[in-house]
Amino acid sequence: MIKIAVDAMGGDRAPRVVVEGAAWASDELDCQIILVGKERNIKKFLDKTDYNKDRIAIKNAIETIKMDDPAAISVRRKKNSSIAVGVEMLKKKEADLFISAGNTGAVVCAAALKLRTLAGIERPGIGVVFPTLTKPSMVIDVGANIDATPLHLLHYGVMGLAYFKYVLGNENPSVGLLNIGHEESKGTGLIKEAHHLFERSGMNFVGNVEARDVYVGKANVVVCEGFVGNILLKVTESFAEASSEFLKRELTRRLLPKIGAILSLPAYRAIRKKIDYSEYGGAPLLGVDGRIIIAHGASSAKAIKNAIKAGTEYVTHKLNKHIMEDLGKITI
Amino acid sequence: MIKIAVDAMGGDRAPRVVVEGAAWASDELDCQIILVGKERNIKKFLDKTDYNKDRIAIKNAIETIKMDDPAAISVRRKKNSSIAVGVEMLKKKEADLFISAGNTGAVVCAAALKLRTLAGIERPGIGVVFPTLTKPSMVIDVGANIDATPLHLLHYGVMGLAYFKYVLGNENPSVGLLNIGHEESKGTGLIKEAHHLFERSGMNFVGNVEARDVYVGKANVVVCEGFVGNILLKVTESFAEASSEFLKRELTRRLLPKIGAILSLPAYRAIRKKIDYSEYGGAPLLGVDGRIIIAHGASSAKAIKNAIKAGTEYVTHKLNKHIMEDLGKITI
Repeated sequence: MIKIAVDAMGGDRAPRVVVEGAAWASDELDCQIILVGKERNIKKFLDKTDYNKDRIAIKNAIETIKMDDPAAISVRRKKNSSIAVGVEMLKKKEADLFISAGNTGAVVCAAALKLRTLAGIERPGIGVVFPTLTKPSMVIDVGANIDATPLHLLHYGVMGLAYFKYVLGNENPSVGLLNIGHEESKGTGLIKEAHHLFERSGMNFVGNVEARDVYVGKANVVVCEGFVGNILLKVTESFAEASSEFLKRELTRRLLPKIGAILSLPAYRAIRKKIDYSEYGGAPLLGVDGRIIIAHGASSAKAIKNAIKAGTEYVTHKLNKHIMEDLGKITI
Repeated sequence: MIKIAVDAMGGDRAPRVVVEGAAWASDELDCQIILVGKERNIKKFLDKTDYNKDRIAIKNAIETIKMDDPAAISVRRKKNSSIAVGVEMLKKKEADLFISAGNTGAVVCAAALKLRTLAGIERPGIGVVFPTLTKPSMVIDVGANIDATPLHLLHYGVMGLAYFKYVLGNENPSVGLLNIGHEESKGTGLIKEAHHLFERSGMNFVGNVEARDVYVGKANVVVCEGFVGNILLKVTESFAEASSEFLKRELTRRLLPKIGAILSLPAYRAIRKKIDYSEYGGAPLLGVDGRIIIAHGASSAKAIKNAIKAGTEYVTHKLNKHIMEDLGKITI
């Protein structure tokens, strides 16, 4: 049976929400869930919930890395943190996949230290898949690595394409480079060099993708450095939240729009969910020798359950093997 | 009378839309508008429109820099382009302000070459003001300079604060640094160094602002490098457009939400306008020795009229004098 380790201490409302999500998953999914964290805390919340006792186990981890703790230092110092223990379980093959809604930097750090990157890959990247007006897209990297080189960007392209091909079943996915203009001459030195690498790589490269085309779906995989990708992701969230608040203010100003608002409320909710990547099972950390899913810090119990569900599918694909094969096929 | 030069050839639907916007402004505003561009083309569209003949003049400029032309090369080669001629008019004091919805890179280049930057300022920055859930904010730079140093970022802070103080009339505006976390230890080397500069500068510095707080209005001025700022701005536009399309699709699926959609349509439009900075009179190019407003390439006639209106207010403030004074007051 598939074994999925879940960081019970990670996320804004951990461990309660994580335990609830795991309990929910245990009723619906055919997998073994191992909740990693402070045993007593986890038990307290498990006892308040219905769950399938055969499918949930606890792995005690007595330390916790907080959401704001400095990543590298925490991982080195807190060897018994839920994040360190969860990643260690992957290394020892005690779990097939690790899910954390906790401190992203710490998860990336622990993975890089304990699991190492795949042969040929220098830096891991976090890829977030979201719907666009046409096809689903992945933005990679959204914050695993903020000192990217052109080669790192090229590798993100290889990993993102592999994810579309082997996990999402897209036969011929495309990759583009996030830039401030579509012309080849645009952008920073990093982007120009990466553009050159992509062009001669033999990948299905569509060239530069402007930010205004991100939600149009101009490429399946949109490659960028982690700082930019993180800003892109978070500003979209911020704007989505602000605009529903703006909308509420506008709508409640007069009666007819108010009635309109009530009638169209389910549609607003549907939109918010569309861009809420936690609803889609979290974001894979690609490029490390092990399977990790990063869930949103604000994940709900449902989002955790969805991440576990996505995890059960993810483990059936030998993505890392494919990434290494595809890496061997490109021209550098 | 205030003299405003307007690039008649700049924008996706130029010269028609620009001429229409200028004609509209000539009926409403007390200023002299000089349309810069191909005289015959401009006249053709002017003849089709009602306008105040005393307030519109034409300055012939026989070349045009296209939206996609490489900026630096075009400015050097096309000395008779509407952009080069318009900026030259500022230099010769033939106009108090220049507005262009054309090739932004070319405007920045022409300004840097012909007008030079203000004493003490190394690079210009484009600042975009938009509403948030609380106070208005400006993101600077959104693409004038993609090779920013920590000092450039500090100068953006000075210029943005001056804009809030002297143009928008905010007595004690705040400035923050766009980053991927609020902790001081987060971010790239560039951001960390800039953080240090801001902290000891004596400005009203609120520290790092995360992208998720941009639309919350955590700071009046949000400083970032041009590449990141451009992505931030454009991805918001992209998402806003996509989400209204998503919303339309959701809403038309069933009858009740459909009725809701019709009733709440005015509210949607109000939101779209909120983030459409062209509605607010364009974005000032700060740091050059002359007044320039960058309008959105997709500007409507109304947006052009609004930019001209904003321009008539902008010229009454001696912003550049204040920027240089404030620059002298900070600790470096």
